Amino acid sequence: MHRTKDIRWTHGISLRDFVTQLGSVGFQSVEVYRAAQAIVKMKKAGAKIFLTFTSNMVTSGLRGLFAQCIELGLADAIITTVGGIEEDIMKAHGDEFVIGSFHSDDVSLHEKGFNRVGNLMISNESYAKFEAMMLPLLKQLYKKKPRHSVSEMLFEFGKTLTDNNSILFQAAKRNVPVFCPAITDGALGFHLFLFQQKHPDFVVDVVQDFKNLLTSMSHDELKGLIALGGSISKHHAILGALLNGGLDYAVYMSTARAGSGSMSGATTQEAKSWGKIKDDADAVTVTGDVSIVFPLALMLACEQLREDNII
Amino acid sequence: MHRTKDIRWTHGISLRDFVTQLGSVGFQSVEVYRAAQAIVKMKKAGAKIFLTFTSNMVTSGLRGLFAQCIELGLADAIITTVGGIEEDIMKAHGDEFVIGSFHSDDVSLHEKGFNRVGNLMISNESYAKFEAMMLPLLKQLYKKKPRHSVSEMLFEFGKTLTDNNSILFQAAKRNVPVFCPAITDGALGFHLFLFQQKHPDFVVDVVQDFKNLLTSMSHDELKGLIALGGSISKHHAILGALLNGGLDYAVYMSTARAGSGSMSGATTQEAKSWGKIKDDADAVTVTGDVSIVFPLALMLACEQLREDNII
Amino acid sequence: MHRTKDIRWTHGISLRDFVTQLGSVGFQSVEVYRAAQAIVKMKKAGAKIFLTFTSNMVTSGLRGLFAQCIELGLADAIITTVGGIEEDIMKAHGDEFVIGSFHSDDVSLHEKGFNRVGNLMISNESYAKFEAMMLPLLKQLYKKKPRHSVSEMLFEFGKTLTDNNSILFQAAKRNVPVFCPAITDGALGFHLFLFQQKHPDFVVDVVQDFKNLLTSMSHDELKGLIALGGSISKHHAILGALLNGGLDYAVYMSTARAGSGSMSGATTQEAKSWGKIKDDADAVTVTGDVSIVFPLALMLACEQLREDNII
Amino acid sequence: MHRTKDIRWTHGISLRDFVTQLGSVGFQSVEVYRAAQAIVKMKKAGAKIFLTFTSNMVTSGLRGLFAQCIELGLADAIITTVGGIEEDIMKAHGDEFVIGSFHSDDVSLHEKGFNRVGNLMISNESYAKFEAMMLPLLKQLYKKKPRHSVSEMLFEFGKTLTDNNSILFQAAKRNVPVFCPAITDGALGFHLFLFQQKHPDFVVDVVQDFKNLLTSMSHDELKGLIALGGSISKHHAILGALLNGGLDYAVYMSTARAGSGSMSGATTQEAKSWGKIKDDADAVTVTGDVSIVFPLALMLACEQLREDNII
Repeated sequence: MHRTKDIRWTHGISLRDFVTQLGSVGFQSVEVYRAAQAIVKMKKAGAKIFLTFTSNMVTSGLRGLFAQCIELGLADAIITTVGGIEEDIMKAHGDEFVIGSFHSDDVSLHEKGFNRVGNLMISNESYAKFEAMMLPLLKQLYKKKPRHSVSEMLFEFGKTLTDNNSILFQAAKRNVPVFCPAITDGALGFHLFLFQQKHPDFVVDVVQDFKNLLTSMSHDELKGLIALGGSISKHHAILGALLNGGLDYAVYMSTARAGSGSMSGATTQEAKSWGKIKDDADAVTVTGDVSIVFPLALMLACEQLREDNII
Repeated sequence: MHRTKDIRWTHGISLRDFVTQLGSVGFQSVEVYRAAQAIVKMKKAGAKIFLTFTSNMVTSGLRGLFAQCIELGLADAIITTVGGIEEDIMKAHGDEFVIGSFHSDDVSLHEKGFNRVGNLMISNESYAKFEAMMLPLLKQLYKKKPRHSVSEMLFEFGKTLTDNNSILFQAAKRNVPVFCPAITDGALGFHLFLFQQKHPDFVVDVVQDFKNLLTSMSHDELKGLIALGGSISKHHAILGALLNGGLDYAVYMSTARAGSGSMSGATTQEAKSWGKIKDDADAVTVTGDVSIVFPLALMLACEQLREDNII
Repeated sequence: MHRTKDIRWTHGISLRDFVTQLGSVGFQSVEVYRAAQAIVKMKKAGAKIFLTFTSNMVTSGLRGLFAQCIELGLADAIITTVGGIEEDIMKAHGDEFVIGSFHSDDVSLHEKGFNRVGNLMISNESYAKFEAMMLPLLKQLYKKKPRHSVSEMLFEFGKTLTDNNSILFQAAKRNVPVFCPAITDGALGFHLFLFQQKHPDFVVDVVQDFKNLLTSMSHDELKGLIALGGSISKHHAILGALLNGGLDYAVYMSTARAGSGSMSGATTQEAKSWGKIKDDADAVTVTGDVSIVFPLALMLACEQLREDNII
Repeated sequence: MHRTKDIRWTHGISLRDFVTQLGSVGFQSVEVYRAAQAIVKMKKAGAKIFLTFTSNMVTSGLRGLFAQCIELGLADAIITTVGGIEEDIMKAHGDEFVIGSFHSDDVSLHEKGFNRVGNLMISNESYAKFEAMMLPLLKQLYKKKPRHSVSEMLFEFGKTLTDNNSILFQAAKRNVPVFCPAITDGALGFHLFLFQQKHPDFVVDVVQDFKNLLTSMSHDELKGLIALGGSISKHHAILGALLNGGLDYAVYMSTARAGSGSMSGATTQEAKSWGKIKDDADAVTVTGDVSIVFPLALMLACEQLREDNII
């Protein structure tokens, strides 16, 4: 039987030893450790790994880690919301976000041109620069052909970038598809709309992209999911998996809870009733702020995988 | 100054008196009362009202109330996720969902063909019937033209229904647009994909629909929002409002919290920093399960509006 | 099978019909309905009912309902925290609390002499008046004898009050014991300390009160619990029940969740592993703000019990 | 301006570098970093530090860290709930708790004699052994005198232990008072009751202990608080601080939220309205599972304090 062990600080402790110790501490600590083990297993088994996250996590600074996951072969497909795409591009062009407080004077921020996301702030300027970038990008895209699936379009965006911390850059470099099922739900949607006004045959084909999602996996191969936060990113991955026989490995990390019947708060247990996750899958749910629990679990997994020369 | 007043049960108490009493009880009680007052005000002021919700709320049984909101002129546009569309159609064809427990044996449910959503269950049969319905609907749609915006498509779906409790039926009847920014993120996505396989020029145009959203409101008119739950439904409405000068009235109801910087948990305060909600708007955030707090607030608003012969 | 039913507003709807309709709506709605049914059952079965709540609920305005529970025979013992005792006495002497906002300027409130509790405020004046009341009360108590159990002391306090909405008044009138396991954890603690400084033999005997709790129930009789919020109030009741064979009926209502292993968020399921709740007990957990979900469930229970002439 | 910085894994990363990097990541990450800085500041300033926690954290395995805080001079007083006392003693006598799952079959656990606390389990045996220990301890205590304050009693318990990971042992060794305002709310309460049955003049004096709390701090000295979780532990510390002019430094860590007006979820902002925390205090609120966020913040603080030869 696995038993709790009292932890202690030792001077100079490594992250690896720290998270390993959390593995003998109850409540969400041990779940973080279990998440790391599930990531190690899905990689070692050669599963195709889907990594999903919401845009606020890109804003937060986890973006570098997401890009690194692609680099290290720990993410074979990405699913996210459009804000994450926008902010990945902004940052790839040198923009930085400001760390402030959850308890700001929002009316005053508005006057100063800062848009708050929790304890972060994005300036209006960043959005203005993003706008200026989009028109040439869309023109270039349109020149090739008038109709693109979402992941094709994002691949083209990625090819224009050169930032190692960029998700789109790394994805384009490694042919990892980036799916975004609600591509118009952000500033990008506005720029797509402006472009279509001038070029009525310009089409962003979401149905085609659903095909791309489905064919990016198969019944036969092992499938793993790391779902960070809830929303359509998470749902889209498990929907694709459901239509391909279900997941073999799943890690859910979120602050959402099950009590309101939301997708975001749905547990890996619930997913088994649907066949989204196989009955005997290795499935871990961590309740906590992703900006903390994901780096902890991922970095322990990386240390272990490096030791075995797998990454 | 507004002061707390101890409440008591009186035999035969009406819902109206009950929620009015909650107006003098601290914590989320008074916020429910304030939400009702904000709904009354936005209607009386003639604001264009956007009603957004997530699919689980349609599953839960709030669907009748959403349809009634359209009927009563309390929702001039709807934004939701695709699961809500699917379940609205299933129910319009007589399907019913089963009430169970949050603590079910999910592996056993899977074997029996039941898919759990919190304490509810949807049978595989319901999905099979939905599948059978979709092909003829899409054929009919395609005959008219190969390219449709999402809200056009949903309008056509609504015209085929006859259920007074159906959101799509009431929306079609009253020309209330239904937006769904991630239309492929559900069983419908699969059917759209199958259809496109046979009809490659079939296009669901999400960019066109973003135009429809933007032109469904204007800078000049008063704008109100009732956002139930988080996700892209909520974000899409406030994005549209942001591009049209911001909201004058806003009611947010959700169990999500602000601490993780998510869109779903973002408060009406945060929205002011963006200009999504005007600085001096009437804005109320209720933290709670929508299946309880929305009916309470809406029904009090209805009683008050009926008294003034507004609905 | 119990199935969801879409709800609708009907003009003049009663609270009873409303909550009955919630019984066919998924997520926390149906759990509120189930809580009402559990309350009806425990009363009809003649169970001894323990009602526990935290002090903020007394502040909020639920106090009247708690007093009414005692009056109607729906609470045979009360367990709470000391803040609830203090505010019950303040209100019984005419004090009122102010309803404000969760987003107040707290430094400014401090300067104005207001103490915030969520979206409520208690004035410094109320505490000053409470202080003035305590000395004569304690003197009177001490005259009788120097050593009192907590519930004895609270019984004496209750006898000095005359407010029908007062918990202590109704409890004293009907010989319902009021337990408060952390009696010093509030302003009252400070006054007890001042009094003991002058009267060193003055003792508040908490060990004696634990005996009183244990003997207030027995193995043989049916036992029910309505636990509102978490904290020691909830724990004390189930500890007493555990030592008396476990609960036959239990309703938990709280916003706390299970993920952090806290007592406050522990479910009725977890309680079964301890024998705190019997394996086959009628146990319902409602996740939600007690200021809303308790009045809904209790008032439906009252309507049903009144119909059967039980209250 | 402080800006976000994308994080990355580097092979062999130390905990110190990791948490320092979290300081440039938004949402709860940066709050953990800020908590560490507040701990460093309160120690460097020579503030008297109050450390409070709930019993489940002792169960979890944080116990070693709490004991180490006392050892390192990072906790000058402890406030906790009685379960934490009991489990500290059990563990000091060699008991270990089992790590399981949040989704256990609780009826089956009950039959096997395991009591679940989240994803941990305590065996009935552990409680039986605890019972056997208590009688001799209480006898010894009683021989000295019949009336003890709670912290005196816990000091005596601590003197009988020899485990470096024990909170009571380290506290006794270093004369750090351990307060427990609801001393009867656990198995210990039952043993105190049994003892008092035989020795009616045996008194556990909670009023005396409130004096001990008040005199353990003073208006003049700097005061810091690390409050882990909510409940009376947290409240008791800030009540004591309020009566001594308020806190100069405060770190709150909890999963509870502010929306229901509970003490447990109350923010450091709210505490300022009361004067519990000084207007200009260094105050940080971290929302998250304490079993993760506390070790992260504390260990970074320890690394920094060690570098400056302060611990």
